Amino acid sequence: MKAILLAEGGVTPECKNIAVPQPCPGEVLVKMYAAPINPSDLAFLKGGYGIKRPFPTVPGFEGSGTVVAAGKGLLPKLWLGKTVACAGSPKNSGTWAEYMVTGASSCVPLSKNVSLDQGAMMFVNPMTALAFFDLYEKTPNPGKQQRAIINTAGASSLGKMVIKLGKKKGIKIISVVRRQEQVETLKTEGTEYVVSSSDHDFEDQLKTLAHQLNATVVFDAVCGTLSQKLLNCVPKGSKLFIYGRLSNEACEIDAGEMIYTGNEIQGFWLTGWLHKKTMLQTFMNTRKVQSLIGNELGSAIYKQFPPEKIAEAIETYKRNMSKGKVLIRF
Amino acid sequence: MKAILLAEGGVTPECKNIAVPQPCPGEVLVKMYAAPINPSDLAFLKGGYGIKRPFPTVPGFEGSGTVVAAGKGLLPKLWLGKTVACAGSPKNSGTWAEYMVTGASSCVPLSKNVSLDQGAMMFVNPMTALAFFDLYEKTPNPGKQQRAIINTAGASSLGKMVIKLGKKKGIKIISVVRRQEQVETLKTEGTEYVVSSSDHDFEDQLKTLAHQLNATVVFDAVCGTLSQKLLNCVPKGSKLFIYGRLSNEACEIDAGEMIYTGNEIQGFWLTGWLHKKTMLQTFMNTRKVQSLIGNELGSAIYKQFPPEKIAEAIETYKRNMSKGKVLIRF
Repeated sequence: MKAILLAEGGVTPECKNIAVPQPCPGEVLVKMYAAPINPSDLAFLKGGYGIKRPFPTVPGFEGSGTVVAAGKGLLPKLWLGKTVACAGSPKNSGTWAEYMVTGASSCVPLSKNVSLDQGAMMFVNPMTALAFFDLYEKTPNPGKQQRAIINTAGASSLGKMVIKLGKKKGIKIISVVRRQEQVETLKTEGTEYVVSSSDHDFEDQLKTLAHQLNATVVFDAVCGTLSQKLLNCVPKGSKLFIYGRLSNEACEIDAGEMIYTGNEIQGFWLTGWLHKKTMLQTFMNTRKVQSLIGNELGSAIYKQFPPEKIAEAIETYKRNMSKGKVLIRF
Repeated sequence: MKAILLAEGGVTPECKNIAVPQPCPGEVLVKMYAAPINPSDLAFLKGGYGIKRPFPTVPGFEGSGTVVAAGKGLLPKLWLGKTVACAGSPKNSGTWAEYMVTGASSCVPLSKNVSLDQGAMMFVNPMTALAFFDLYEKTPNPGKQQRAIINTAGASSLGKMVIKLGKKKGIKIISVVRRQEQVETLKTEGTEYVVSSSDHDFEDQLKTLAHQLNATVVFDAVCGTLSQKLLNCVPKGSKLFIYGRLSNEACEIDAGEMIYTGNEIQGFWLTGWLHKKTMLQTFMNTRKVQSLIGNELGSAIYKQFPPEKIAEAIETYKRNMSKGKVLIRF
């Protein structure tokens, strides 16, 4: 089968021919249909991801396909023949291959209204969007006032989901983007609050909005110098969740400001968040995602590539992250 | 009267003659006996403190003296003639003067066992030490396991209080210092766990200790590159409180590590912590401090200076912070 492989110490994966793996008890073999490239994949390729696997390894955290073989166990047999959204097995291989073995519990049969294309992008971004609102609800709100959310990388697929879910839930979202053209794109799509960090008066604009809307919960995928700028703009006692580092820089945090404002910083990792949920909560969340994937939690597809063109696919994705997802089609 | 004054934009305060202020309703006039120099005073002199006052201003956050005049009100009359520990009024002047006007509620009459010297240092460090253990108790501990505390600037007056209070409470303290000589000083005084951040294998040493003792609550007064090093050494899901920035540098935080470890960062400011307490809680805390000030919460005095020698006093303090407190004696 064709598989995209990352060698030890490598950064650029290549398409190679390897043997089709066989499922062990509790596992299934999925004939893959499609798998997206996500920011977490880029982090994984650079070696900066929380999960380490033996090399060479197949990257890819999510995808869709058909279960074509089942290991021992009730769940594997139940899934046999079904089209599923699937996550890579954390300790083995990922989704960027013609066939993947993964735990049956890492597969969710697709309901009729979900296409294999959308099913391929059902875990990472939609679950992250749900997680953001979960964290928002759980962040203490002693004043019991209406609060808004600030989200960076606001024009990304995830950013757009957060905007739509916020609208549905009646929670105001301030989207921070890095280029003026993204402001216009989002405004054209009907987004109310967008600020570009490239504006010379970015902090003034954001500070005014953040205080007006009481934006005390911040999700930051950029880091570097942006994190402290965000903290400078929010009301005292706000909480900043770091969920990415698109700037490729360390967060520079002003200790004095932290001391006097009582602001908090915490990391957010989807895998860690999912681990804290019970099986029932996860099941309910996948149901919620499937019901919303035609609308709030859907992703636009920018381009599709065969596995042989993985290098081009990655480059295309990096240069067009806010235009939609890039899919690898098997 | 003699008063130490900081001019607008100034960094070095000077001793000048100004009129004795008069108490308004609710206030008292304290004839000052002594006032210490604290790290928060150094931050205030540099303009980097949370509280801003009109200039020229008298610095100094705490001290001791005798109430010699009272404004209208029950409490001022009650304190008249008493020796008190006192805090500067946040919006008016501080304690570095022969006479100070402050709110009667910012004074605590000294019990018989507390000297005016110790009374002068009864608020900032002892209350901070109590606050640390309060925050330790309030930091969620899902595993219900015994946890240890890491504290930086471990050889400071506050650092020594934290060590002694930890011993009294049966909570293990790992003290991080910046020089090898401070390791020896603390070890000579019977401190069990001390690590110097100047050691080449600092992170290895601290990581071993932090995992062995489950040190998941960290207090950092240094910041700069130290904060991330501390976070690299602690078990996942730890919390770091920033309470100073002796390095004079921004905290450099590794976004990737934050994401995957679920660690948290929060600022600690004594003023903010005190504001969240009820009057009764604060009263109980001042009682606790007075009962412990002969032992766990006492401060060693390194040198005393008259107000005219404020410049020398500040320099002496900066160069000898772990040798004991420097007092201004009026």
